[in-house]
Amino acid sequence: VTRMAQEIAEQPAAIARTLDALLPQRDALRRLATGRRQVLLVARGTSDNAAAYARYLLEIHAGIGTTLGAPSLATHYGIRRDLTDTLVVCLSQSGETEEIVATQRWARHSGACTVAIANASDSPLIGEADLGLVTQAGPELAVPATKSYTAQLAAVAVVADALGDPERSLEPRLRAVPDRLARTLDARAGVDEAVAALADAEEILVTGRGLVFGTALETALKLEETCLQPVRGLSYADLRHGPIAVVDEHSTVLLVAAQDGPMVAAMGELAAELTDRGAATIAIGGDAELQAASSRSVPGPDLTEIVAPLGLIGPAQLVVEELARTRGLDPDAPRGLAKVTQTDPDQPAPGEPDA
Amino acid sequence: VTRMAQEIAEQPAAIARTLDALLPQRDALRRLATGRRQVLLVARGTSDNAAAYARYLLEIHAGIGTTLGAPSLATHYGIRRDLTDTLVVCLSQSGETEEIVATQRWARHSGACTVAIANASDSPLIGEADLGLVTQAGPELAVPATKSYTAQLAAVAVVADALGDPERSLEPRLRAVPDRLARTLDARAGVDEAVAALADAEEILVTGRGLVFGTALETALKLEETCLQPVRGLSYADLRHGPIAVVDEHSTVLLVAAQDGPMVAAMGELAAELTDRGAATIAIGGDAELQAASSRSVPGPDLTEIVAPLGLIGPAQLVVEELARTRGLDPDAPRGLAKVTQTDPDQPAPGEPDA
Repeated sequence: VTRMAQEIAEQPAAIARTLDALLPQRDALRRLATGRRQVLLVARGTSDNAAAYARYLLEIHAGIGTTLGAPSLATHYGIRRDLTDTLVVCLSQSGETEEIVATQRWARHSGACTVAIANASDSPLIGEADLGLVTQAGPELAVPATKSYTAQLAAVAVVADALGDPERSLEPRLRAVPDRLARTLDARAGVDEAVAALADAEEILVTGRGLVFGTALETALKLEETCLQPVRGLSYADLRHGPIAVVDEHSTVLLVAAQDGPMVAAMGELAAELTDRGAATIAIGGDAELQAASSRSVPGPDLTEIVAPLGLIGPAQLVVEELARTRGLDPDAPRGLAKVTQTDPDQPAPGEPDA
Repeated sequence: VTRMAQEIAEQPAAIARTLDALLPQRDALRRLATGRRQVLLVARGTSDNAAAYARYLLEIHAGIGTTLGAPSLATHYGIRRDLTDTLVVCLSQSGETEEIVATQRWARHSGACTVAIANASDSPLIGEADLGLVTQAGPELAVPATKSYTAQLAAVAVVADALGDPERSLEPRLRAVPDRLARTLDARAGVDEAVAALADAEEILVTGRGLVFGTALETALKLEETCLQPVRGLSYADLRHGPIAVVDEHSTVLLVAAQDGPMVAAMGELAAELTDRGAATIAIGGDAELQAASSRSVPGPDLTEIVAPLGLIGPAQLVVEELARTRGLDPDAPRGLAKVTQTDPDQPAPGEPDA
């Protein structure tokens, strides 16, 4: 059994521990966010895929305008901004990515209040934040992030719950995640068939939309870095605005969708259209229509769209881990990747803009 | 000569006409933006690549917080937002993409003031906006957008100039674009060599960072839709956080950079690293170091970074158009694409959220 497989299996417990640790911090989050009119998210890589969920979740559930930040505006262009109306949320599993730490420092100097989400309590990102949300994934030894990513999603959901209407709290739906994810991971339904379909795939594309768009991006990133093949993650809309023209019998498309919500019907229609173009299609999650319209189907956990990303990545991770082994690769230590990524490897940590 | 080639050549005149028409609207833009603390950009496809430039330009030059909008939040999730502090800028070449028109309608109902950028004065997007900026590209007959895209970039620059410090006006730098772009288009330096390098390329990737990141995305989109091969556009940071692991001797990477600014040095280092991994590298623009570190080089116009996107896409378009012909394809009418793209083809136009 690989470490990656073990860590995938540990996710229900990691999510449950993270919810136990962070749900009690909602009052502190509410106090900190008082008077803040918008949220700015700062992240890279896998953490940026968690931020993609946070962006939709905060807008939809908490009703607060949310921006995905471009760290280089702070670290390279040195712009000055008045962030006194802004809550800045920085995500980094290690809490050590210099670009993210530097951007958080810049945000504090610009008047923002800052929340850090990291899996290491002694990291600079947590140490320097106004409020640190330490995820409880435990040590992660495989290079591809799995349980540290789903623990981030749980933290993000706690932030959205804190800023949202307490009468529509996400808590019951979040508490249901660990059991339902565990059942899906145990069943491994459709995983072998999806791996067989992907084993010799030439062009792999992953698409999704709305709340689960980040899940599609994370599936693409994990496939690419673990299975060492270029994989594109594209939103439903971006796919339709051009790249769909190159989908043909050489393409294998994974369609990521929740079991309900306003997006799943269009994903089913897209699956049918991609099949018409000759592509092989694999549904990750979705409803009965999407599954019927796809050549292969890996069902997701029984979770409503608003919390679906916490569970939907699980079966996708099972596919990635098994595909890597099928191809004779070591999923725990993919070629050319380190556990802590620096965006600018040779550059000294940027100072504060006012220094 | 293809229509696409003609329309590429018409860009200096299209940009000049657009500047003549829109620079006088800066006072109206300033009045409209009074009291607005942030900008929300709404676009898809090629227009979204223009929005990527607008995002950096507005933050860097005008010092205003800017968000790339997710139209589905309005059209599918029906969120309610208070946009009374927001200037919303919608971009669509045709002005007819329903999703964008519907999002502009939603924004007005949410209290935003709205600016529309389109190439058709009689389009619904222009008709319903508080202020319409009609670009002067003239009729565009080839399916791949070229002059309508660069005219959008000129419009975006006018918006940023209106909101920025008049003492540091972009106007002189913008006025220099047509001549310098014309010279670069006439010279076609490096184009044949880049086309030869791309003719049999297996995996094509385009990367860029900061102000010219949108130029990299647009180069990738044009290559893909015109040359019918999957092409990935990735930011410098996203490339480093994972996908760089799959760059090898099967990869051809286009590195897009301005001739100056805080990003070009890192792009040169990246070119050297990609070469070490066995990839073929093609510089689009850049400085002497980037060009020396790349296997091929297509120099950009002599334009400083802040306005470079208006000219830098020109030589990239020349490569795309010639590559398509080299492959026996018709650049004017790529397979499977229409001139006006609807994100949800089967869906009726969404109503106003309050209807």
